[in-house]
Amino acid sequence: MKKRIGILTSGGDCPGLNAAIRGVARAAYTMFDADIIGIRGGYLGLIEGDFQEMNRSQFSNILTMGGTILGTSRTPFRDMRVVGEDQVDKVEQMKNNYAKMGLDCLVTLGGNGTHKTANMLSMEGLNIIGLPKTIDNDIYGTDFTFGFHTAVEIATDVIDRVHTTAASHSRVMVIELMGNKTGWLTLYAGIAGGADAILLPELPYDIREVAKVIERRASVGKNFTIIAVAEGAMDVKEAKMKRKQRDVKRAEEGCTNVSIRIAGQLEQMLNVVSRTVIPGHVQRGGTPCAYDRVLSTQFGVHAAQLISNGTYGVTVALKGERIVHNSLSDIAGVAKPVTANHHMVKTAKSMGISLGVAGD
Amino acid sequence: MKKRIGILTSGGDCPGLNAAIRGVARAAYTMFDADIIGIRGGYLGLIEGDFQEMNRSQFSNILTMGGTILGTSRTPFRDMRVVGEDQVDKVEQMKNNYAKMGLDCLVTLGGNGTHKTANMLSMEGLNIIGLPKTIDNDIYGTDFTFGFHTAVEIATDVIDRVHTTAASHSRVMVIELMGNKTGWLTLYAGIAGGADAILLPELPYDIREVAKVIERRASVGKNFTIIAVAEGAMDVKEAKMKRKQRDVKRAEEGCTNVSIRIAGQLEQMLNVVSRTVIPGHVQRGGTPCAYDRVLSTQFGVHAAQLISNGTYGVTVALKGERIVHNSLSDIAGVAKPVTANHHMVKTAKSMGISLGVAGD
Amino acid sequence: MKKRIGILTSGGDCPGLNAAIRGVARAAYTMFDADIIGIRGGYLGLIEGDFQEMNRSQFSNILTMGGTILGTSRTPFRDMRVVGEDQVDKVEQMKNNYAKMGLDCLVTLGGNGTHKTANMLSMEGLNIIGLPKTIDNDIYGTDFTFGFHTAVEIATDVIDRVHTTAASHSRVMVIELMGNKTGWLTLYAGIAGGADAILLPELPYDIREVAKVIERRASVGKNFTIIAVAEGAMDVKEAKMKRKQRDVKRAEEGCTNVSIRIAGQLEQMLNVVSRTVIPGHVQRGGTPCAYDRVLSTQFGVHAAQLISNGTYGVTVALKGERIVHNSLSDIAGVAKPVTANHHMVKTAKSMGISLGVAGD
Amino acid sequence: MKKRIGILTSGGDCPGLNAAIRGVARAAYTMFDADIIGIRGGYLGLIEGDFQEMNRSQFSNILTMGGTILGTSRTPFRDMRVVGEDQVDKVEQMKNNYAKMGLDCLVTLGGNGTHKTANMLSMEGLNIIGLPKTIDNDIYGTDFTFGFHTAVEIATDVIDRVHTTAASHSRVMVIELMGNKTGWLTLYAGIAGGADAILLPELPYDIREVAKVIERRASVGKNFTIIAVAEGAMDVKEAKMKRKQRDVKRAEEGCTNVSIRIAGQLEQMLNVVSRTVIPGHVQRGGTPCAYDRVLSTQFGVHAAQLISNGTYGVTVALKGERIVHNSLSDIAGVAKPVTANHHMVKTAKSMGISLGVAGD
Repeated sequence: MKKRIGILTSGGDCPGLNAAIRGVARAAYTMFDADIIGIRGGYLGLIEGDFQEMNRSQFSNILTMGGTILGTSRTPFRDMRVVGEDQVDKVEQMKNNYAKMGLDCLVTLGGNGTHKTANMLSMEGLNIIGLPKTIDNDIYGTDFTFGFHTAVEIATDVIDRVHTTAASHSRVMVIELMGNKTGWLTLYAGIAGGADAILLPELPYDIREVAKVIERRASVGKNFTIIAVAEGAMDVKEAKMKRKQRDVKRAEEGCTNVSIRIAGQLEQMLNVVSRTVIPGHVQRGGTPCAYDRVLSTQFGVHAAQLISNGTYGVTVALKGERIVHNSLSDIAGVAKPVTANHHMVKTAKSMGISLGVAGD
Repeated sequence: MKKRIGILTSGGDCPGLNAAIRGVARAAYTMFDADIIGIRGGYLGLIEGDFQEMNRSQFSNILTMGGTILGTSRTPFRDMRVVGEDQVDKVEQMKNNYAKMGLDCLVTLGGNGTHKTANMLSMEGLNIIGLPKTIDNDIYGTDFTFGFHTAVEIATDVIDRVHTTAASHSRVMVIELMGNKTGWLTLYAGIAGGADAILLPELPYDIREVAKVIERRASVGKNFTIIAVAEGAMDVKEAKMKRKQRDVKRAEEGCTNVSIRIAGQLEQMLNVVSRTVIPGHVQRGGTPCAYDRVLSTQFGVHAAQLISNGTYGVTVALKGERIVHNSLSDIAGVAKPVTANHHMVKTAKSMGISLGVAGD
Repeated sequence: MKKRIGILTSGGDCPGLNAAIRGVARAAYTMFDADIIGIRGGYLGLIEGDFQEMNRSQFSNILTMGGTILGTSRTPFRDMRVVGEDQVDKVEQMKNNYAKMGLDCLVTLGGNGTHKTANMLSMEGLNIIGLPKTIDNDIYGTDFTFGFHTAVEIATDVIDRVHTTAASHSRVMVIELMGNKTGWLTLYAGIAGGADAILLPELPYDIREVAKVIERRASVGKNFTIIAVAEGAMDVKEAKMKRKQRDVKRAEEGCTNVSIRIAGQLEQMLNVVSRTVIPGHVQRGGTPCAYDRVLSTQFGVHAAQLISNGTYGVTVALKGERIVHNSLSDIAGVAKPVTANHHMVKTAKSMGISLGVAGD
Repeated sequence: MKKRIGILTSGGDCPGLNAAIRGVARAAYTMFDADIIGIRGGYLGLIEGDFQEMNRSQFSNILTMGGTILGTSRTPFRDMRVVGEDQVDKVEQMKNNYAKMGLDCLVTLGGNGTHKTANMLSMEGLNIIGLPKTIDNDIYGTDFTFGFHTAVEIATDVIDRVHTTAASHSRVMVIELMGNKTGWLTLYAGIAGGADAILLPELPYDIREVAKVIERRASVGKNFTIIAVAEGAMDVKEAKMKRKQRDVKRAEEGCTNVSIRIAGQLEQMLNVVSRTVIPGHVQRGGTPCAYDRVLSTQFGVHAAQLISNGTYGVTVALKGERIVHNSLSDIAGVAKPVTANHHMVKTAKSMGISLGVAGD
């Protein structure tokens, strides 16, 4: 029996989206009779009815491509149920367009926000399958999301390149990596790049602890230090504030980037020269690494199997070596932060890497 | 209490060896009072007493380095107990040198052969911890070995580069990847590189099935085909022979590389031009990818923890997200082949990738 | 006035072809009113009349792509004038199709063979502009061809990766690089990769000189050696033979790859273990490096300027920093070999790199 | 006759410094009897007498290393003759230490500032040879400096990775590349990365022209735009100010990065979302590309030849394919800016790339 499958990609782009789209499509074509409908620009396309019938050739040559051939957009979950000035009920629109397209199911590729909306649509009666993509790796219930390991590879390459400059110039280099709320990317890249200190949003740092790292290294003749910091990292004082309060304080200080503040503080506290590197969007672009291509493909294939079985209301996940699926309602809105006693944090500490936390 | 730790690397080199050595050393130095003794050239160095007291600075700047700072060699397990012309009892020599160095334990980094000897030395009463390295990923009891994912990245990059030539010239490209007995590397890289057929040592192929792939693609207007083949792949006839018989047959046919034979057969069977690519040792050299740097570090840290606890006779392993350890006696000599019903094989088939097996 | 421009790519593919095609098209569109006609599969497409009117969007997103969107083929120049069994006069066919397409000119991207045919067509009265592409860098009159530096980068990366294995295993590694008649690629990659010996087609080697390199290194405690050899390299005896004679001799010896022979000879002559690496087509595939993207673009722009001026019968070339053009009749069929007193050869010798030539 | 050669690296580090150091040393050892003295931390080491006798093994394994094994520092030329509070006459100190080391000559690797001091020391009677390193490519008299092409490769890779995000999110991406006074890096990387607009310090931009690029692309259905901007780029108003005045104005506007200002302006002028990427020090770190390894080696070899001939007071340069040398007094303090009618600027314009200049 033929299945009509809608696909959309939502939220920030990341490497592996096209590989996952290709995985769903090719496995569906191989396993059963399928029509694939591409919805453009994320949920916005579903709201506005912007879609196209795809043909097989459109999934050729996209395995290695970064970004998403379907385009993406950010429509925050909290705005989904809000009827705006245009009097459009977005949820109704999405349901109507789903019906208009005659879909048997909708596959949504995205991060936490995407999964919240996916769960809501599932609750509304649509057949939904989620695929967890994000360079932040912060989706509950999966060991890894696709896009994460590519971002780690890129961020590690950045640290590698900065290393030689740090050593040649006897400098403290502060590398600010992506991760507003979660520090997985910084934690992994920091370990892989041989950072001396790793500062994460979840574990507020004390700048005096960071300074100690530099002093300890200097005391054994090491004239440079590498600090990997997540963009959302905060010091112990900020951590006690509410978000708005913190934003106000930072704006007053003219501190848009945490790395710039840290570098400035360290230069004031110690007799060192410090520089920042903020690679930004580079971390989420370009061809996926082989690991992510395989994982994206596995996720896509699993989604096709779920469609074949008529299993909906779930999101695909990696558990150990195996691909499994979790109920959307179990994982939507659940955070997956780095915790102080996570085994990767312990690994970092065992390597003598400072996390900037007092008393370590 | 101070621990004296010997380290050696044995068997073929692979990316991540230095990262793992650094992991053991740095975690040991961080966690307890440790002396590290580097044994040169693998078990040969243990037999011949070629070792040196290491100092901390020798573990700096090696995280990103390929190869092994300790050097390596291949002394097959089956020769370990053989007393040669020189009347040297190698096992006694190793035990003597272990005692002479005053070791509390010996950490051996290696593949299957290395683990067999490690287990034997453990049975002989030495305190042994194994770390599973190999680009083949064929060590029982661990999801992945370090070195494997770097090799997959390199092999995938090879397939990527060959892809454009295949398409531009309307050719069949046969890429021969490492893997004499096991096909994990070829399976992963084949999926990541978008291969149309993947041929593995464990699943004998029928050349007619491979030819069908090319014909099927031609019938939908695709003028090129990518075939990933493990160096140890064999056709259904060869699979029935004994190893020696097969080697004789191949020598008679002048067929040193399976890819060259396949390319020739396909050119004879079909009206196509076929070329081979044999990247060889490139797959096991150079800087480890970030994934392998993290895994190697985790393995090294776990080894240090085992030493701290006095847990010996084990090898470190990855299970899901966690680092665990298995008894050496449980895993030594146990193969970990690709099986026909492994989920990765099913993933490949679901993607429409041929494994060359009749009846698929 | 509108210009109708035909483009074809001929001979082996190489990185930068698409960048050059894009350069011609985009500069033509920017500078004057242009129609671009893409001829498929090289001269074969011109003979058979296989072409298509291109639109602007077809030149988007191809800057970074390896291979050629137009496809390519090898029709040796010597066969162009031969009327085959099919009684087709290929030259007349090409002239007819040129007229049928209503071309103002034809831009041919290719190597030496391509330029010979280009010159012949120019002699026959067609308006021809050549663009010199080849990873061999053997086109007379240009400092560099596009594709060359990308191949050097790839080959150097291969040598880098092999280096660590060579050192870890105390081995002699023989890396066979592309270059049947010319050694530029091997010479540059050998210097960039830190090879200890570099063997080129133009400078016949004495295997005893190569062995001396290994011995000299061993005498100062260096336990490994890196040899970069062009696929067309030959020893002093072979160099005195005619090509056919040499091919017969090699077939008798079962020596298809020069690197395999050299590795075998060195193992026989010395107490060493030697391995070969033959990266093959990897050297000509994939995305062009930045240098080649710029050069290809410059070449394409210059071609558009020539078309704008109505200057034909020329091929574009790099001279120092500047893009110039040479008469097709001056460069067609002229070789550009590595010579014994070329400054790059002297650079290699000054670095203590052996070229395997007796008496050096 | 033995030569005693001092070497120092000064100014910002860049890829190829170690390759050039190795080139000088190895060629000197090959060509004549040489002692190499490494001076640490640039001219500061010469002033303070911080140096060491090098041995041959210290030049092994550095070809591929980023940074400089000798360390570096920035001592501005204008401060060289200033006697500070410490009453130290730096020039006399340098001359004294040169004599104390018993040098036959001093090889200085650096950029424009380094060459000014080198020329001054030459005028003071020391035997000096300069090697032109900088990722800015702004040293007069050489086609290219080493380090430049590596930086172009890295910056191009950044643009590549950002490209897919721009397209997927329909965004204007503004990529800020290094180059405070000169735009060569941005010009080359912009062309290689397929940028739609390229803004350089030497060619003041009009933001309205930049906005037009986005509008023109939107009018043909292209929903994203890539802008490459050098960190030192300025708009037409700023270009009329004196440097101090400009710095004051920028500080008042809170505009530390030109890319952030441009992105903000474009968002205000047009209905677009714009993001910035500022890769920073990544551009000058890590292993040199093959091109720069070869060039650095050639430069080093040429320096050794000059020493052998006793030719001093010069700096090594690339002219076309050949390595030459210029008098230090001819090139010290001479700028090499991008000019409006340079052929690369014309190439960019012919490709339809906007330089943001009114009236183009």
